[in-house]
Amino acid sequence: MNHETINLADKLSRFSEHWSPRVIAEMNDYQFKLAKLKGEFVWHDHTDTDEVFIVIKGTMHIEFRDGLIQLSEGDMYVVPRGVEHKPCAAEECHVLLVEPRGVVNTGQAGGELLAENDVWV
Amino acid sequence: MNHETINLADKLSRFSEHWSPRVIAEMNDYQFKLAKLKGEFVWHDHTDTDEVFIVIKGTMHIEFRDGLIQLSEGDMYVVPRGVEHKPCAAEECHVLLVEPRGVVNTGQAGGELLAENDVWV
Repeated sequence: MNHETINLADKLSRFSEHWSPRVIAEMNDYQFKLAKLKGEFVWHDHTDTDEVFIVIKGTMHIEFRDGLIQLSEGDMYVVPRGVEHKPCAAEECHVLLVEPRGVVNTGQAGGELLAENDVWV
Repeated sequence: MNHETINLADKLSRFSEHWSPRVIAEMNDYQFKLAKLKGEFVWHDHTDTDEVFIVIKGTMHIEFRDGLIQLSEGDMYVVPRGVEHKPCAAEECHVLLVEPRGVVNTGQAGGELLAENDVWV
């Protein structure tokens, strides 16, 4: 069998686009994605699934309709299914996302930040 | 709602036992667990699920019946379901594990390194 290890920094070095998650691994029907965030994303939710953010580098925040959280390197947060949220990063921030295969970055909100899905790096 | 963030280093500071995974978060029916590894684990497999290792600190290796991989900080590996493996760490190594709720650390192998399941930190 192929015993390929995945290095997060190496994978991050292979793309530069913001708000464009790249798949690096699959576990069962879940995907691990790296993303580079900068600026303000759109308000959206994922009606069918929770979504995990783990900050690899930098800082970001996530706005909710009832509050806001700050996340720095080594911080993790689980956005519950159906909860509207808006990720933002004043400076470029690198995150690891975990969610089921098929989840679209903007949920049903769409718009110009809608990224092509299932793009591997 | 409760907007609690999770800091990996803080959670790691709260336990010291080796080979005893602690749950830090749930996403749908999956759990994120931190574990401190040192020494040799037992040969085992998980017949129903893949299992993700992400190294947070230190180095480890995973033996397979047909080879071996080395993992350092920032490295990730997905052990496919049903594949026998034996994690080892010469010095203490901290890892983040991702797998469905209910997975037992030794699979069906049991033994003295069988850890209580679903222990949160």
